[in-house]
Amino acid sequence: MKAGQLEAAEALELNPPAQGLKKWMSMVDFALRIVAAIGTLGSAIAMATTNETLPFFTQFLQFRAQYNDLPSFTFFVIANGVVCGYLVLSIPLSIFHIKRPELTITRIILIIFDTAMMALLTAGGSAAAAIVYLAHNGNSSANWFAICQQFSSFCERITGSLIGSFGATLALILLIIISAVVISRH
Amino acid sequence: MKAGQLEAAEALELNPPAQGLKKWMSMVDFALRIVAAIGTLGSAIAMATTNETLPFFTQFLQFRAQYNDLPSFTFFVIANGVVCGYLVLSIPLSIFHIKRPELTITRIILIIFDTAMMALLTAGGSAAAAIVYLAHNGNSSANWFAICQQFSSFCERITGSLIGSFGATLALILLIIISAVVISRH
Repeated sequence: MKAGQLEAAEALELNPPAQGLKKWMSMVDFALRIVAAIGTLGSAIAMATTNETLPFFTQFLQFRAQYNDLPSFTFFVIANGVVCGYLVLSIPLSIFHIKRPELTITRIILIIFDTAMMALLTAGGSAAAAIVYLAHNGNSSANWFAICQQFSSFCERITGSLIGSFGATLALILLIIISAVVISRH
Repeated sequence: MKAGQLEAAEALELNPPAQGLKKWMSMVDFALRIVAAIGTLGSAIAMATTNETLPFFTQFLQFRAQYNDLPSFTFFVIANGVVCGYLVLSIPLSIFHIKRPELTITRIILIIFDTAMMALLTAGGSAAAAIVYLAHNGNSSANWFAICQQFSSFCERITGSLIGSFGATLALILLIIISAVVISRH
């Protein structure tokens, strides 16, 4: 009886409730990284592979739209690619955290990189969003005309590709907060 | 002699080296918040007060440039204003952290808001940057012409106003990392 109680106490010490919570949060961290990696990969591919050539042409206007016509879209593809690569590389560390939830130093390293990557992804996403908005609505003050009337399928594609990127940004915000909460409980 | 040693040990326990480091980092946190608040305030004011009317006009073109002609610039001003307001409100908490460096829960709250505000500020800054780039260089594929040849003083002003915003973004990244490091050392 006494020995059993001792064993239970020992088990509790090795795996207290806080440790269980940390393990559970590490699993959420792992899942969020996979979701964010898929989101950024999808966005980068959707943006990079889009192009539309109109079936008519004139002497003065170019009727072919591609993502690298606009520097903001190129930046968007690069940012999503870099963040996707980082997320894939961080997954092994995330799995390691599920096994060893008490580690702190590696979580700090992850927070630093997560924050930098979040800034990069947000910058890419919103620069592209600003141009997408302009493509849809144009701007009369600057005499910039909406190009979406001509390039409707191109515009649909680039608008859709923003979703994955902003979803991944949200996932990265959650990742930073989760890491901070886990670190505070050691 | 013995009493002196005891007192020294007691003082060390009340104020160990880690506590000193935390206090020092809390001061850096405080300084960064002030720098970021000034940066965002300056950016918001610089962008919001800029307008240029050209001394000539035709029937077809509008020759007056203002920040709210472009929705991205309006978003930039709002984002900078909101983040500046948040930073000013967070300063009392930051001062409180200098006095009580061992607090954790309030630091977690600050990390959550700092991360959200960092995302908002980065989004505003890079959306504006995308449009500023377009204003400087135009885009031949989309038939968007550079407007900076006409509105040179307007363009100088909006380009300059990005600096404060990106400086503040950098300060917020550092704030998140500092908070995470301080939390890990309790």
